[in-house]
Amino acid sequence: MTLTLDSAREVGADYAAVAALLQIGAEIGVDQVLDSGRTFSVADLAEVTGLSQKRLGEFVLALSSAGLLAAEDGDGLYRASDDYADWRHQVGYLSWSLTANSPFLQNARAFLSEDESAAETYQRDGRRVAVSSRWIGDRTFYPAVVERVVAAGAKHVVDLGAGAAGLLIGLLAQDEGRTGVALDLSSGACAAAREDAVRAGVDGRLRVVERSVESLIEDPSPLEGADVIQACFVMHDVLQDEAAFDDVLRTCHKALAPGGILAVVDAVSYGQEARERKFSALFTYLHSNFMGINLPTEDQWVEKFRSAGFSDVEASSQVMPGGRLFLATK
Amino acid sequence: MTLTLDSAREVGADYAAVAALLQIGAEIGVDQVLDSGRTFSVADLAEVTGLSQKRLGEFVLALSSAGLLAAEDGDGLYRASDDYADWRHQVGYLSWSLTANSPFLQNARAFLSEDESAAETYQRDGRRVAVSSRWIGDRTFYPAVVERVVAAGAKHVVDLGAGAAGLLIGLLAQDEGRTGVALDLSSGACAAAREDAVRAGVDGRLRVVERSVESLIEDPSPLEGADVIQACFVMHDVLQDEAAFDDVLRTCHKALAPGGILAVVDAVSYGQEARERKFSALFTYLHSNFMGINLPTEDQWVEKFRSAGFSDVEASSQVMPGGRLFLATK
Repeated sequence: MTLTLDSAREVGADYAAVAALLQIGAEIGVDQVLDSGRTFSVADLAEVTGLSQKRLGEFVLALSSAGLLAAEDGDGLYRASDDYADWRHQVGYLSWSLTANSPFLQNARAFLSEDESAAETYQRDGRRVAVSSRWIGDRTFYPAVVERVVAAGAKHVVDLGAGAAGLLIGLLAQDEGRTGVALDLSSGACAAAREDAVRAGVDGRLRVVERSVESLIEDPSPLEGADVIQACFVMHDVLQDEAAFDDVLRTCHKALAPGGILAVVDAVSYGQEARERKFSALFTYLHSNFMGINLPTEDQWVEKFRSAGFSDVEASSQVMPGGRLFLATK
Repeated sequence: MTLTLDSAREVGADYAAVAALLQIGAEIGVDQVLDSGRTFSVADLAEVTGLSQKRLGEFVLALSSAGLLAAEDGDGLYRASDDYADWRHQVGYLSWSLTANSPFLQNARAFLSEDESAAETYQRDGRRVAVSSRWIGDRTFYPAVVERVVAAGAKHVVDLGAGAAGLLIGLLAQDEGRTGVALDLSSGACAAAREDAVRAGVDGRLRVVERSVESLIEDPSPLEGADVIQACFVMHDVLQDEAAFDDVLRTCHKALAPGGILAVVDAVSYGQEARERKFSALFTYLHSNFMGINLPTEDQWVEKFRSAGFSDVEASSQVMPGGRLFLATK
């Protein structure tokens, strides 16, 4: 696989335009309607967003002209184009790198000047980080994790740093006999998880726990009965206190049933596969120089799982660029 | 030519990462060194930016790991990779769409709420607009304009809205017998043009005039003796006052020698060629809904040149997506 540039196609222009249009959609709140894939009118968008039909009509014109909406038969009805979800996934990387991280990029000089106050002054918007992460994740690590959880026949799944619990809700929707616990430190994320669970009709089988991952060391009760404990892009935060991280891993190991799996998706330092080296370079650099987080290499991650007592540890790079799915079996 | 997504390649991740890394480079001021193509050390970057070698060393590691720098033989020397300029061009679209326009995108709700103060409150950074426009332009409309100016055998070229006069300085550097006038409203742009002209050794043949395009109606003296008058992405601003625009065109027509050419590169409303429709949709939409600028269609542009007295008007779409090169001959 070669990654040569095809400049005649001006591919950058397409990606940039779709990213900007979808970002505007997310900012004004029409993304839920577009994402649902259902048919809608401009009036429907006005109801969801509270904006005028005139302004929304112009946005619909722009999306249609860009090929991101298809007009349905009938009177002024639209739905997302067939390739909309593919585009949303691809531009998730742009949305994360350039929009969610814009406080870092646009104040790079302050961060690199050893200005201690920069990290406090220029903070990212949590919602933009979450939205762009979901756009990236829904086609990369979500399917990889789902496949393993299903293959393991897991009946009770605990998600650490679950965010709005999109991955877990999907797993519960797939199997009526499956239950789950979504743990997250953010009250906003927990509220979103509760709402989304109701919408998906799985709220009877999902418990949402507003707590830090580290708090499990003192009180591991949310882990009770888990066949699978999953944690996507949260462990590199926990790892900044190595002793706490080791304790969290040991707590997970103890809580799992024999044969139970700890599934961790996380990033490695400067991944060097051809398909990942650019994004992994950005991801590693932003974490180390703008967020104070040093990522381990793949081998360092594996060693940590082994040290915590997991007998079998697999690493797969078939997730997102720079990411690995670690499967640690008790 | 098909524009299908190749999601297996995660192309979006590559574009996003390069865009973010190059944006950081531009923010901290190492872009000039990278753009020059010359060999450099981390110490050289420290001298240019005033940042620490430790921090710059980490940035160099990130760029190298992303394949954007090549290590030279010898002690810690680097230069931009062979495909660096291609990447910079492609990510220019991302830098313009998502970084330069971030005040629009991130406050989309305020703009679309008919909040009259939004445009004043959330203004773009002129330098970010200029840098990203140059990254886009250097591979798209610059070569198209240069080709026509050279073919016309132009000896004296006037550039309206010249910015830092990169295009004009290039034209003067190509032919020692060529002279030019760079006209721009921005004192910052004019100062940059003067500095760059000195650096390129063409300052003896370039006059920089700090004035608006509209001011030519009252005083057309900067146009005197022009074989070619060129204007890249400035006329759509002038056009917002149609009467003034018509007067500017007539003034240009009058000032040109017989057979002289007015070369205008500008954007059309919702271009529908497959390769341009996405970026043109964004460009058109941002201008109409965030900047109060309504773009003409290609036919409407052509008609305006004809009305001003130009006998022969050609339009070419072989510039940037959504752009046209109009060649109006006296």
